[in-house]
Amino acid sequence: MGTSQAQRPPATVAMVEESAATPRVREIYDDIKATKQIDFVPNFWKTLASHPPLLEETWTRLKAVMAPGRLDARTKEMIALAVSATNGCNYCIHSHTAAVKKLGLDDAGLGELLAVVSLFNGTNALADGYQIEPDVIPQVDISGSSD
Amino acid sequence: MGTSQAQRPPATVAMVEESAATPRVREIYDDIKATKQIDFVPNFWKTLASHPPLLEETWTRLKAVMAPGRLDARTKEMIALAVSATNGCNYCIHSHTAAVKKLGLDDAGLGELLAVVSLFNGTNALADGYQIEPDVIPQVDISGSSD
Amino acid sequence: MGTSQAQRPPATVAMVEESAATPRVREIYDDIKATKQIDFVPNFWKTLASHPPLLEETWTRLKAVMAPGRLDARTKEMIALAVSATNGCNYCIHSHTAAVKKLGLDDAGLGELLAVVSLFNGTNALADGYQIEPDVIPQVDISGSSD
Amino acid sequence: MGTSQAQRPPATVAMVEESAATPRVREIYDDIKATKQIDFVPNFWKTLASHPPLLEETWTRLKAVMAPGRLDARTKEMIALAVSATNGCNYCIHSHTAAVKKLGLDDAGLGELLAVVSLFNGTNALADGYQIEPDVIPQVDISGSSD
Amino acid sequence: MGTSQAQRPPATVAMVEESAATPRVREIYDDIKATKQIDFVPNFWKTLASHPPLLEETWTRLKAVMAPGRLDARTKEMIALAVSATNGCNYCIHSHTAAVKKLGLDDAGLGELLAVVSLFNGTNALADGYQIEPDVIPQVDISGSSD
Amino acid sequence: MGTSQAQRPPATVAMVEESAATPRVREIYDDIKATKQIDFVPNFWKTLASHPPLLEETWTRLKAVMAPGRLDARTKEMIALAVSATNGCNYCIHSHTAAVKKLGLDDAGLGELLAVVSLFNGTNALADGYQIEPDVIPQVDISGSSD
Repeated sequence: MGTSQAQRPPATVAMVEESAATPRVREIYDDIKATKQIDFVPNFWKTLASHPPLLEETWTRLKAVMAPGRLDARTKEMIALAVSATNGCNYCIHSHTAAVKKLGLDDAGLGELLAVVSLFNGTNALADGYQIEPDVIPQVDISGSSD
Repeated sequence: MGTSQAQRPPATVAMVEESAATPRVREIYDDIKATKQIDFVPNFWKTLASHPPLLEETWTRLKAVMAPGRLDARTKEMIALAVSATNGCNYCIHSHTAAVKKLGLDDAGLGELLAVVSLFNGTNALADGYQIEPDVIPQVDISGSSD
Repeated sequence: MGTSQAQRPPATVAMVEESAATPRVREIYDDIKATKQIDFVPNFWKTLASHPPLLEETWTRLKAVMAPGRLDARTKEMIALAVSATNGCNYCIHSHTAAVKKLGLDDAGLGELLAVVSLFNGTNALADGYQIEPDVIPQVDISGSSD
Repeated sequence: MGTSQAQRPPATVAMVEESAATPRVREIYDDIKATKQIDFVPNFWKTLASHPPLLEETWTRLKAVMAPGRLDARTKEMIALAVSATNGCNYCIHSHTAAVKKLGLDDAGLGELLAVVSLFNGTNALADGYQIEPDVIPQVDISGSSD
Repeated sequence: MGTSQAQRPPATVAMVEESAATPRVREIYDDIKATKQIDFVPNFWKTLASHPPLLEETWTRLKAVMAPGRLDARTKEMIALAVSATNGCNYCIHSHTAAVKKLGLDDAGLGELLAVVSLFNGTNALADGYQIEPDVIPQVDISGSSD
Repeated sequence: MGTSQAQRPPATVAMVEESAATPRVREIYDDIKATKQIDFVPNFWKTLASHPPLLEETWTRLKAVMAPGRLDARTKEMIALAVSATNGCNYCIHSHTAAVKKLGLDDAGLGELLAVVSLFNGTNALADGYQIEPDVIPQVDISGSSD
């Protein structure tokens, strides 16, 4: 209870190890390992398990959003990496770089991806920095039908 | 199909009006109005309805996360406003300011809230700008039990 | 010279119209229109022309980076949109949404893209917010050969 | 003078230890320890002391802003943590997590807090990503009286 | 009280006009006009006056920080603009661009400034995106003397 | 191929050491060392060399943008540090702090610089957080001549 000057643990809360997980948490852990085809539970998920509803809703949503649809799995992981590099999230950059490499992107492909990320972080600052008024507007059908 | 220099519509896709919604989308619209006690569907939700799964997963998650728990509704809305002000999201700032006012925060309370947001956006830049090593570490029980 | 309370012009500097452009600027304008297959020069480029070296270096770099390579043109535009949505850059979001639509992405595809962007902006905040230590590390061949 | 490839020190400037502090700096250090009820001076403040006016103005302002008013101390610390998680500031996240725990927030409370932070970092990207026009506007009394 | 779909007012709270200001607020307004040599009170300050302590502490701090020291006034305004362009803050970009122009920066100078801002927003994304370990470390005298 | 729980290497790709560089990469390395007057190739550049076009375009652009013009070298490096501190980019903050120190900025000057960065990260959040309408607009000559 209270602050200390101790060594930094691997997160600001205690992670829930597999051996200490409740049945529901273990079920989610098993689904994570099966879905991602890995043999350990990453720190990210063991940390969210410190508040089980957060683990459940985050995993459920991630699994749904990352399922291939109009965009394939690799494109989705590349977008995840682009977002993470823009935000500078260390954990996420490592994790999504591992994922895109696993899905076949080589160093030249990663270089192209980060070149695009770098370029537009730069041009975003120009468009904002000059307060340029939008004039290239996507065509929108304003009839308003659903689907 | 293609770009134009037309007037900006209220979003980059067509919003789905209530009168044009499918039964499932209308059901969600009704839940939004009932839960938020408002008599119209905000642009945010009418825009997400351009891709119904996005509407459904976002509303389901928001409803679950914003339900009062250890933190009450007003505290959660204040945190939402703090995040939105930090990110500079126009739509979100208007919407969450309306919500905290509705929940009883007056101008002085809003001033205190934004003073805290302003202060720590400033000190974040100092801690990062000097690359200060963390030494005030929360105490973590690393025994790793779940709950 | 000095501040005023006038109406906001379309940028904080005067844009260079085609009719007023120097030969070198006009050459770049022509290349922009030909490369992007549009019949007008967008505000972004007319604004950068207020400092011609900035126009030239930005256009040269954008043209090189956006050329299809291991990643195709649509993937690159989707990444540009992901970056711009994460940064909240109004001009850029409009422009890149127009581009991905022109390249065939429909509303469902855009919904999937923004669902991924939204999800990972959220999980980035969790990984950072809990200060989770990276453990999913991409495999790196540290032998250090070039190419 | 000049760059090197040495080990990283705990900040980019030399911290001012208590034993080496001028009387005015020591006075502020003592106030920090008394106000925060801790028995050491955190790295953050020892670093700002490398430019004493920065130490003084930052501490003075933080002390004023964080004093309980319409919002209590714990709410203010939670907002500080929400801002720091959104910005991904390592030092600040550790420090404010320690503070909210000290003020009684348990792991479930922290989980709720970060779930809100995560959710709205995600929805901010949607509202910006679709460029949705604000329609939920807080009611403002434009008569313009001061208190 | 409550949300509406009305026209957006110029801020989410009522601004305090000069004619309606309390003596203390008017005193600060007069100091702002005199210090900045302008004949109106900008919206920013009239908005902060909705919570007078916020007006007072923000103005006091800004006046102290912006006073010329080792860095001159124009350099400080350029840094303010660099920060504002990086954050994409519309109000701030307009205001600081007006200030640097008033202090003599012409369009070419502004172009150079924003070229630097653009470049490093881009390289920041590369350094983070590749998770490159710092090796260019500023030399720090760790003897720890305070000035 | 695939993920592991190994120790973190100094980047997510293999850096290209000088001894393993192709002639073109070595040429750029030599230019970097000569231009920056250092006797080693920083990790940043050895990492970009994993995709040689990225190394070449980034170095070429950086060299052009950082050449003294209306703004001198130290001012440009200070702006680079302001951007990096705002983004919280660890590598970049270390590197640009080393650079400004090398160019003669002492701890008091660095303190002034970061005080400005901190202040405006704070006021940006206020201007956005209150959604204040721009009224201090730079004077723009809309006649539209190019230079």
